[in-house]
Amino acid sequence: MVDIDHRVGIKAPISKVYAALSTVEGVAGWWTKKTTGVSKSGGNIDVRFNSPSGKEIGGMNFEVMGLDPNKKVHWRFRLGPKEWIGTDVIFNLSQIGDYTIVLFSHKNWCEFVECTAHCSMKWATFMLSLKELVETGIGKPSPNDVKIDNWNWTSGASF
Amino acid sequence: MVDIDHRVGIKAPISKVYAALSTVEGVAGWWTKKTTGVSKSGGNIDVRFNSPSGKEIGGMNFEVMGLDPNKKVHWRFRLGPKEWIGTDVIFNLSQIGDYTIVLFSHKNWCEFVECTAHCSMKWATFMLSLKELVETGIGKPSPNDVKIDNWNWTSGASF
Repeated sequence: MVDIDHRVGIKAPISKVYAALSTVEGVAGWWTKKTTGVSKSGGNIDVRFNSPSGKEIGGMNFEVMGLDPNKKVHWRFRLGPKEWIGTDVIFNLSQIGDYTIVLFSHKNWCEFVECTAHCSMKWATFMLSLKELVETGIGKPSPNDVKIDNWNWTSGASF
Repeated sequence: MVDIDHRVGIKAPISKVYAALSTVEGVAGWWTKKTTGVSKSGGNIDVRFNSPSGKEIGGMNFEVMGLDPNKKVHWRFRLGPKEWIGTDVIFNLSQIGDYTIVLFSHKNWCEFVECTAHCSMKWATFMLSLKELVETGIGKPSPNDVKIDNWNWTSGASF
């Protein structure tokens, strides 16, 4: 199994970071504007991604496996790129001084593929987007996301 | 063993990207201004990182294991944080249309530690810095690097 792991520190109360991860409005503020669904345990959330020209280039649907206020958010992907199906995304939160520390993990990839490396970079930019959203009020959700490579401009991109 | 893998696409000829990875001046333009040494196979390079206030917060020394022009750069860390010693950083380059694709890998961590997740985020920001350097002429090497968490402000940070 292959995991992607990132650590980011956000200068804000843990409750603000948790809100950005545990609500549809929050996720729409840092990941993709096209976020819909129900963010409660057992609920499903749909995320869609457009190219800068407005063409849909991909999307996923995940189940909310657990919401532990101010501590942990757990998603499991049910639909999307085949490499993503059955994988888990977990955000673990803790407070250290003025910072809320987010330990992000996208776990249980069957094997390493080039898409894993693309997704690792892309998740890093979205973690910076989460940090900006909570600290300044303005994130960089798709379609305003940071473009990292050629796959971000074509239908070959998973996100 | 645990690896960090990132994929980035740079809109520039492969020779420009290779130059930014295979010369001391290049590395100083995207990773840290305090880069010294000899970039040839068997040579050693030293990198030092300062906090925004100017205090040194860490550094590493690595051996250049291989330089394959316009294809691959391979480093092995000899001194630095204990988790880094013996690990390898490899940049594999290829051209796809207008893009030079960089497949970055920091390989052979003994085990996953919280520092791995910090370093994964930090390498992602440095890969964006490499992209900016080559595409615009101005990167974000330390001490102008993107700060991602509380460890970037104290002597606890490896980089």
